[in-house]
This record gives sequence, C-alpha cells and structure tokens, in this order.
Amino acid sequence: MSIMSDIIVFRYFAPAIAILTGVYAILRYRGLKKEHPGTDRMIQLSDMIHTGAMTFLRTQYKILLIFVLIVAVALFFGIDPGTSFAFVAGAGCSMLAGFIGMNAATIGNVRTANAARTSLPKALSVAFRSGSVMGLAVAVLGLFGVSVFYLIYFNIWTIQTYLSGIIPNLSLENIAGFGMGASSIALFARVGGGIFTKSADVGADLVGKIEAGIPEDDPRNPAVIADNVGDNVGDVAGMGADLFESYVGSIIASIVLAYGFCRNEVPEILGLSGAKTLIVLPLILAALGTIASVVGVLFVKILSRLGSPATVLRNSTFISTILSIGFALGAIVYLNVSIGIFWAALSGVIAGTAIGLITEYFTSGAPVKRIADSTKTGPATCIIEGLAVGMESTVFPILFIAGAILVSYSAAGLYGIALAALGMLMNVGMTMSVDAYGPVADNAGGIAEMAGLPAEVRQKTDKLDSLGNTTAAMGKGFAIGSAALTALALFSAYAVSTGLDVIDILKPHVVAGLLFGGLLPFIFASITLRAVGRTAMKMVEEVRRQFKDIKGLMEGNAEPDTKKCVDIATKGALHEMIVPGILAVVIPVAVYFIFGKEALGGVLAGSIVTGVLLAIFMSNSGGAWDNAKKYIEEGNLGGKGSKEHAAAVIGDTVGDPFKDTSGPSLNILIKLMTMVSLVISQIK
Amino acid sequence: MSIMSDIIVFRYFAPAIAILTGVYAILRYRGLKKEHPGTDRMIQLSDMIHTGAMTFLRTQYKILLIFVLIVAVALFFGIDPGTSFAFVAGAGCSMLAGFIGMNAATIGNVRTANAARTSLPKALSVAFRSGSVMGLAVAVLGLFGVSVFYLIYFNIWTIQTYLSGIIPNLSLENIAGFGMGASSIALFARVGGGIFTKSADVGADLVGKIEAGIPEDDPRNPAVIADNVGDNVGDVAGMGADLFESYVGSIIASIVLAYGFCRNEVPEILGLSGAKTLIVLPLILAALGTIASVVGVLFVKILSRLGSPATVLRNSTFISTILSIGFALGAIVYLNVSIGIFWAALSGVIAGTAIGLITEYFTSGAPVKRIADSTKTGPATCIIEGLAVGMESTVFPILFIAGAILVSYSAAGLYGIALAALGMLMNVGMTMSVDAYGPVADNAGGIAEMAGLPAEVRQKTDKLDSLGNTTAAMGKGFAIGSAALTALALFSAYAVSTGLDVIDILKPHVVAGLLFGGLLPFIFASITLRAVGRTAMKMVEEVRRQFKDIKGLMEGNAEPDTKKCVDIATKGALHEMIVPGILAVVIPVAVYFIFGKEALGGVLAGSIVTGVLLAIFMSNSGGAWDNAKKYIEEGNLGGKGSKEHAAAVIGDTVGDPFKDTSGPSLNILIKLMTMVSLVISQIK
Repeated sequence: MSIMSDIIVFRYFAPAIAILTGVYAILRYRGLKKEHPGTDRMIQLSDMIHTGAMTFLRTQYKILLIFVLIVAVALFFGIDPGTSFAFVAGAGCSMLAGFIGMNAATIGNVRTANAARTSLPKALSVAFRSGSVMGLAVAVLGLFGVSVFYLIYFNIWTIQTYLSGIIPNLSLENIAGFGMGASSIALFARVGGGIFTKSADVGADLVGKIEAGIPEDDPRNPAVIADNVGDNVGDVAGMGADLFESYVGSIIASIVLAYGFCRNEVPEILGLSGAKTLIVLPLILAALGTIASVVGVLFVKILSRLGSPATVLRNSTFISTILSIGFALGAIVYLNVSIGIFWAALSGVIAGTAIGLITEYFTSGAPVKRIADSTKTGPATCIIEGLAVGMESTVFPILFIAGAILVSYSAAGLYGIALAALGMLMNVGMTMSVDAYGPVADNAGGIAEMAGLPAEVRQKTDKLDSLGNTTAAMGKGFAIGSAALTALALFSAYAVSTGLDVIDILKPHVVAGLLFGGLLPFIFASITLRAVGRTAMKMVEEVRRQFKDIKGLMEGNAEPDTKKCVDIATKGALHEMIVPGILAVVIPVAVYFIFGKEALGGVLAGSIVTGVLLAIFMSNSGGAWDNAKKYIEEGNLGGKGSKEHAAAVIGDTVGDPFKDTSGPSLNILIKLMTMVSLVISQIK
Repeated sequence: MSIMSDIIVFRYFAPAIAILTGVYAILRYRGLKKEHPGTDRMIQLSDMIHTGAMTFLRTQYKILLIFVLIVAVALFFGIDPGTSFAFVAGAGCSMLAGFIGMNAATIGNVRTANAARTSLPKALSVAFRSGSVMGLAVAVLGLFGVSVFYLIYFNIWTIQTYLSGIIPNLSLENIAGFGMGASSIALFARVGGGIFTKSADVGADLVGKIEAGIPEDDPRNPAVIADNVGDNVGDVAGMGADLFESYVGSIIASIVLAYGFCRNEVPEILGLSGAKTLIVLPLILAALGTIASVVGVLFVKILSRLGSPATVLRNSTFISTILSIGFALGAIVYLNVSIGIFWAALSGVIAGTAIGLITEYFTSGAPVKRIADSTKTGPATCIIEGLAVGMESTVFPILFIAGAILVSYSAAGLYGIALAALGMLMNVGMTMSVDAYGPVADNAGGIAEMAGLPAEVRQKTDKLDSLGNTTAAMGKGFAIGSAALTALALFSAYAVSTGLDVIDILKPHVVAGLLFGGLLPFIFASITLRAVGRTAMKMVEEVRRQFKDIKGLMEGNAEPDTKKCVDIATKGALHEMIVPGILAVVIPVAVYFIFGKEALGGVLAGSIVTGVLLAIFMSNSGGAWDNAKKYIEEGNLGGKGSKEHAAAVIGDTVGDPFKDTSGPSLNILIKLMTMVSLVISQIK
C-alpha cells in the first residue's frame, strides 16, 4: 500500500478510532452501573448529589442554549454557515461530554464508597472506571467532532476548486468554529462551575465548621450536598470542558497552520503530499493518542492489585504517555514527514509532564512547610508567604513553556508550536480519566461519612481522596501548561489566517494592545474573586437561616433543605458567569474591528502572558495554602484548634477561589480569546 | 534674536536654571535650619531619627560605592569611557539628592512638630519647606547632571565630525550612562528602603501594638525610632530616587530618540535646525518645568493661610502644572517645532494626573468601604476583597497609559511617547516636594507623641499626617504612571539605538522573551515580599528580647536600645537588596548576548506589561487595606478592638510590603532593565 493511498485511509482512521473508543466507553459506563450502590441511605445521598448536579447542568445548559443560538446566528450571517454549524457542533460535543462525565461521576461516587466496604483495589478500580468514562468521552467527542468536520469541509474545499464561486464560500478554516463552540462552553463551565463549587464549599465551611462547630461532610449541614455537587461541577465538568477545549484547540491550530501553508498553492485533489499530509497528521496523532489512552485505562485495571493506588495511576499514565510518544514517532517516520515534527511534539510532552511535577512540588513539597511555618506569626504572614510561593512557582513552568516554544519552532516552525500543544494532549483520554477520578473519590468519602459507614471504610476512601488531591494539583498544572501552548498555537494560527507576517510591538497600537491584553486577566480575576464572595455570602445566610428556622436540625431530628442550597449556588454561579463570558467574546471582536488585526495580535499576546502567569500564581498559591492547612491538621505545629491552624484556615479560605475559580478561569480566557480571534479572522 | 542663535543660548539655559534653582533650594534649607527645633526631648528624639537615617544612608552608600565602581570599570572597558563617566555622575547625583533630602526631612520633622505648637499653617509651611528641599534637589541635580553631560558630549560629538577617528569613540548616546547610574541607585534605594521601612513598621506593630499592647509611636517600643527612620528611608530617599530616575530617564529617552533621527545625517555644526532642535527641546522643557516647580513651591507659602492644608497643596500643584503646560506650549510654538509635540506632552500630563486621582479613589473612596465591610465575615474575605480591589484598580491607569501612547505617538511618533513621559515629569520639583512633605508630617506626629506634647499639637500634626497619606497615595500612582511611560520611552529609544525597525512577537525568541520578561516582576515581587518577612522576623525577636531583658522598660524607667533596631533593619535591607539588584542588571545583559537584541526587546516589553500591572495592583491593594483599617479605627463597624478591626489589621499587615516594598520596587525594575538595555545597545 503506498503512502498516498494510506493517507486517504488515514482520513477515516480518526473517526473510526473515535467510534470504537466510544463503544468501549459505553461498555465501561454500563459496567459501572452494574456495580452495587450500597445501603438505602447511601443511595438516598447519592441521589441528592446526582439530582443536584443534573439540576445545575440542566439550568446551565438552558442559558447556554440561548447563548449558542445567538452566537450561531451571528456567525451564520456575519461569517459563514460552515463556521456556524461547526460552532454549534463544538458547543454540543462539549456539553455532551460534560453531561456524560457528570452522570458517570455521580453514579460512581456511591459505588466507590460501597466498593470501599470490600477492598481498596476494588474501590480504586470503581472510582477510576467512573473517571475514565469522562476521560474517554472527552477524547472521543473531541476526536470524532473535529475529524468529521474535517472530512466534510475538506471534501467541500476540494470540490470548490472545481466549482469555484458556484457553491458558498467555505474553507477548512471554518473548522475553527468547532473550537470556538468548545471554548465558549468551557468558559461557562469553568467560571460557573468554579463559582458554584467554591461558594458551596466556603458557605458550608464558614457556618458548619466555624460557627456551628460540626465536622466536614456532616449530614446536618444544609450546604454539604451542594458542596459535594460542587466537586463534580468544578472538577469534572469544569476541568473536562477545559481539557476538551485545549485538545480540540491544539488539533485545530495544527490543521489551520498546515492549511495556511498550502492554501495559496493549487490543491492537488488526490495527491496528498507535503503540506496536505501535515493537515491530516494532527488527526492521526490524536487518534493514536486515544489508543494510548485506552491502553493506559486498561493498565489501571491490570496493575490495580500490584501496588498502592498512587503507584498504579502513576505507572499507567507513564505507560500511556510513552506509548503516545512511540506512536507519534512511528506515524511521523511512516508518513515520511520531517522528524522535526516529532521533536516538537516531544517538547510539548516534556513541558507538560514537567509542569505537572513542578506544580506538585509547590503544592505539596517544601514550600508548603514554609507556609505552615509562617502561620506561627499569624494569618498575615501566612498570606504573604502563600502569595510569595505562588509567584515563585511561576518560574519553572514559564521556563519550560518558553523552552518548548523555542525547541518546537526551531524544529518545525509555527506548526511545531501547535504540535507541541498537541503532543502534550495526545493522550488526554488518560489524563482526564485520572483528573475525573479525584472528585469521585472525594464524593465517595463524603457519602461514606454522611451515611455513617464504619471507620475502616472511611479510611480507604480517605486514601483515595488524598491521592485525588495530588492528581488534582498535577492536573491543574497540566491544564495551565496545555492552555498556554494551545493559546500560543492558536495565536500563531490567527497570524497565519489573517496573513499577518509581523506583529510589531514597536507600533503604538500593538504596544497599547499588549498593555490592554495584559490587563484583561486582572479584570477577570477580580470579577471571579468577587463573584465567589457574593454567592458564598448568600449561602452563609441560607445555612444560618436553616439552622435557626428548622427545629431539631442540630440535634439530627430534622432534615436540612439541601435543595435550596443547591439552588442558591446554581443561580449565583450562572448569574455571575454572564459578564465575564460576554467580555471574553466581545473584546476580541471589538478590538479587531476598531483597532485592526495587528492590535488584536498585541491584545492576545498580552493576555496570554499575564493570563498564564496569574493562572499559575493563583492556582499554586491556593493549592499550597490548602495543603499547609492539611499539614497542620495532621498534627504538626500544634494541629487542629491551635492558632497556627486558625491562621492556616484563613490562608486556605483565600486560596479556595484562587485555585478553583479565578486561576482555572484564566486558562479558558486566553484560549477563548484566541479562538474567537481565529474565527473572526476569516472576515478579511 | 533669531531662533538659531536662541538654541545655542538655550543649551546653556538648562544648566543656568538648575544652578539658580539650586541656590534657591540652599536658601530654603538654611531657612529651615533656622526654625526652632523645640524642647530638649524633641531634639533628642529627632537626633535619634536623624542619626538612624544617616547611618542607614552611610552603610548603604558604602555598598553602593563598590557596586558603582565595579559597573563603572565594566562600562569603561566594555562600552566606552563616556558611558562610564556618565554612569558615575548619574549615580552620584542620585545619591546626593537622597542625602540632601534625608537631611532636610530629618531636621524638618522636629521643626514641624514645634511649629504645630503655634499654628497649623505655620506647621504646614515648615513641613512643606522641608519636603521642597528634596523636591528641588531632585529637579536641580537631574537637570544639571543631564544638561552638563549633554553640553560636553554634544560638543565632543560635534568636534568628532572634524576629527573623526582621532579622539575616542564618544556619542551623545553615552548620556544614557547617566540614566543607568540614576536607575541603579534607585533600585537599591527603593528595594532597600522598602525593606527597611516595612520590617521596622511590621516589627514595631507586631510586638508593640499586638503583644505588648502599647500604642503606636510609644517611646518604650525599641523599634519605634527605626519605624520613624523607615518613613524617611522609604518615602523620602526611595521615592526621590524613583522620580529622579524617571525624570532623568524621560529626558534621556527624548534626547536619544531625537539623536537617532539625525545621527545618520551629516551634522551641521552650528545650524541647529530640525532634528537638532528636538535634541535640545527636552532640556528646555525640563528647565521650564523647574521654574514652574519653584512657582508652585512659592504658592504654598502664599496660599498657606487661605485654606485647609489639602486645598493649599492641591491648588499650588495645580498652578504649577498649568504653568508647565503653558511654558511647554510657548517653547514649542517659539521654537517652531511641530505642535504635535505639545499634544504628546499634554497627553502625559493628563495621564499622570488621572492616574493620581484614580489611585486616590481606589485607596480612599468607595472601594475602601467595601473592604471594610468585608471584614464582617473575617480576615479571609477582607484579603480577597482587597486583592480584588487592587486588581480592579489596574483598569483605568492602564487605559490612560495606553491612551497616552496612542495619542502621543500619533501626534509625534516615538519621540512623542518620550515627550509624554517628560510632560508628566516636567514639574517633578513640585510633585516630589509634595511627596516628601508626607513623611515629614508623619515623623512630626511621631515626635509629638513620643515627646508627650499636648493633645492639640498632636491634633494638628494628625491633620498634616492624614493629608500626607492622601498625597502619598497619589504620589505612588504618579510614580507608577511616570515609570510606565518612561520605561516605554526608553524601550523605544532602545529600539532606535539598536537599529531595530521591528520587534516581531510572531518570532519564537521574541514570544519566549515576552513570557520570560513577564515572569521577572513576579520573581521580583516574590523575593521582596519574603525579604520583608525575614527582616521583620529579626526585628520582632529583638524587640521581644529587649522587653524581656531590659528591666523597667515597660514601666518607662529605662531606655530601649533603639540603635540596635535601626541596625537590624539596615543590615536586613542591605543584605536583601543585593540579589534583586544584580538580577535586574545581569538579565538584560545576558539576554542581549545570548538571544540577541530582538529577544531582549520581547523581554523588556513583557516585563513592562506585568511590571506595571503588578505595581498598580500591589500598591493599591496595600493602600486600600491601610485605609480600610483607618476607617474602622475612626469608629466604624465596631471600631478599634472589634473583630472587624482585627481582620482589617491583618489586611493592613499583608498590604504593608505590597504598597511600600514590592509594588514600588517594580517601578524601578522596568526602568532599570530598559536603561541597562539602552546602554548595552551601544555595543553594536
């Protein structure tokens, strides 16, 4: 079989792999459902969480539907039908992935708690099975969506060369609409989810733990169900939409860049050589990465009895990553494209892994002990030290990102930068599975506590939960790193698509744009920080009210109105996500039309620089405060109840919106803005 | 008299004005010395502060001397003798200005306190007289230094056109060495001063107010003298060096840009038309601005009995600014250069004033009340709200800076950007006088308290002090705004000097540079935040030790060892300033030689963007927390002793290094890095 005919086959390779993996994911979901959910009380609690999560999703999706329709109409008439259709599909796929993942997570939590009644490996296996449904859904829907649109638009583009001017103007670049759809949903999922989870968390803690003096996850606390729902809303749906966006974005950036190379040549309809191989390559790599993810997922099962949960997850991820690299090398050699492309992808893999490890160090290594020590002189020094740690933690991630840019560009040009992002994200199915495992384990612990399961069950879920905290920290680092590279790749694609050869920061409107762009993440962080505060306040009032008005609640003789608390978090989150969401979409459009494409380039670059820095700073400060508190709670420096602990709790409370709302939202901001810019750049 | 011969005259105009103003400043200083310093106890206290301040300066200058010598030798052999001489002179002038200002401030404080025993206008007049010595010293030494080097180097440059190759290579660009000297001193003054003042302040408060329960400025507190010294070290010497650097930097940037325009033409030795008028224009404007400053200073005396101190200072500043604008317009019309230059300068004046007012709003308006309200739910929400306010406060300053860039560039090109910075700083003599007034008034209050003067005296000094807080907030905003525009002007000068026509952020090493540059302010902020913490810890231990070891101290029967505390702050500050100082100088040099001039352009742009944003954010968060605490102390929300107050104190403690160490240090970082780059750009 010649390489040329292979490439035609390869065009169908990606959707085929996506479908097969999808079938596998469905089988896993069915297997999960067959697991026993445990006692009646456990089922009741799980139902409350499930209902709460679905209520939030339903309400959010209703609002998003309106947003999607308005934007789709604007794109249909303002740009072209192809972009509009792709936009709707991208938004739809992201929402569907979120829905599937939330479903799996909220039926998986109780089954994990129940499995913990038998053995730790069994519980790990169930929790990871639940997470892997989300992980695979992200990979499958991303790969399937992009590759189907690729097939359709590529064929239309090819036909157009014959029927030039007769059929409507449609180009492969329209595929960017898919990414914009994914990005828009991601923004709302991250911002809304972040506000939901933290307002519920802070609300539950402020009244429950501090005022009423009852433990975490106590069923008497009306906000505790909302808190558990929030874990899913933030860490499953929010993180999933974030990585879905990065994944889709890196594939699209690669395609658009390759398309830019060959757009001005006469397309050879069937001779798919040179630049055209580069167009299809990202899809092939993504498909191969999905296979590697499935292998990684299988290995969790295989290894589950051979080591601690941490070792199992680490080794499986490692196997999946090595396999991705091997696959990529094989494909690149087989297709006979430049080996530089492999080095570019590899630089992304290395940067992503390194950033994950650095994040782990700063949120659980020596810096955490320094923060804990700083509580000796009170909360103020704890805050200062935490902020200093967060700022310091930006150094190595930025150096790795800068290094990946330099290596990947010198190896394969702008296309190389996109491939670095894609390399990082090839096996997103595995990465996301590990991420989604965390909140399932966390919830399982909550249910075990609320259902009054024996101490040894809780001990097992605690082990899984503590591992979940580590994977969550690394996942956040990875999400930021991949967002940075994806945004830079999209930025390059924007430049190629607009035909900008140069974005010159000596020009006043570019420098002004750079400053203005740099400002946006600060505004965004300010808005989201306040949004959490406002919604948390409402939650605090409601919890206080219930403790006062519902007779017998504190004594455990009456049920709290948990639904009301879920409602408050839902309404608050959705209400507060609208302004930042609109800002992120409207600003690039306004700058493009008022100040021009080069100024917008400056704005994008500025927002990426401060966005990445602030995201790392805020996420890591927050993570480090959290673990400093946990470190003291383990009995160090006086343990619980000491004034050191009180200071650490203050740090942790400041850190909550840092790490779970504002920080992660910035990932989306920079990707969404570049994606919107890429879409509007089609208006020449 | 023809315009051409006028210009020859005008070359001597600037040094002449500088000398005359210098004489006036000396007379004011003598007048100040003649004022009565008050009771023996007051003199004793003032002597302690004076001695402490001078000890700090002497120790600091010893270290700086070594630094200056090393760099001077490097410049002498690495670049050229002209740059090296200018560097030494720039450093010397900045140090001299700091020395004069500190002298005036530390003899003015006690005289202000004594004057407050007679009347408020008298006290205002003495305090402002003291501040104006520093203000005028900054203007005089800056103007004199640059204009003398201009004369020398301009003449040599002109002679060189005859004797090309015979005398050593020297160009007008060597004048940048003067700016680098000023910048280096500014860095150490701001960083060292900031660490000194905050470690003394935090140390005094933590043990004195919180542990020992004695009031602020209580003479029993061993750290209280160090705290008063710190006000001078930070707000007089530090702020003075900062503005001195901006002032000198904006003049030099303008000269270098104009010089770039005509460098490649054959210089017409005596026919100073066109581009050459643009070379001398910045000096003329600076000289005219100095006259406007003197007028402003005189008006404070004239108006002092006609309104509240706030009105007097505001109106005098207003008169001085309007006069500057008028002078600038006159000079530009008379010299028959493009009126666009006037619009450029005016845009800087407007941006500077606006940023000052915005800063005042965010640090004393509605946002402060919001922070105070947030203390109801504890310190965590107070911290979050303060951070959100600081982030939010970046919006309008950035818009004004971006606006000034767009306006000034479209009015007069890159030269316009430099003129915008200069416009802002023309009457720096007046601005700095108002700034230096603040710490004098603050010290006067401290002395009145420690010397046990009657309540009505303290009331008057309190009024002056509270006004000082407002002028300090505005001054900080102004310092950041002028630093931003100066850095951008120097950045443009760097590009012209290196012959870069384009700095293209689509190139990988420029994007990587942008990210790396953006990172530097975060590193810098992290280092300086920690430095304050470490030094404050040492201070706390010492104060605790003295309270324990010195018998009778708490009862007021024994004297504390205040000198020891001053020593600790001095050593800590000087020790901690070395690493950041070296980083700021070494990084541009390393990037220039390893990655090239365009990559360095990216680094500079990145550091300016995040540097300005972080500086505004940190300064304003800090200022707002400070005033939220004061607002509660005025009796709102439960007043002193309430849990709201305790929360606000925590916010204020976090804010201390934010607003007085890390934030202001970033001003210098961005200017010093661009200045160093400008100097090394002479190595072609």
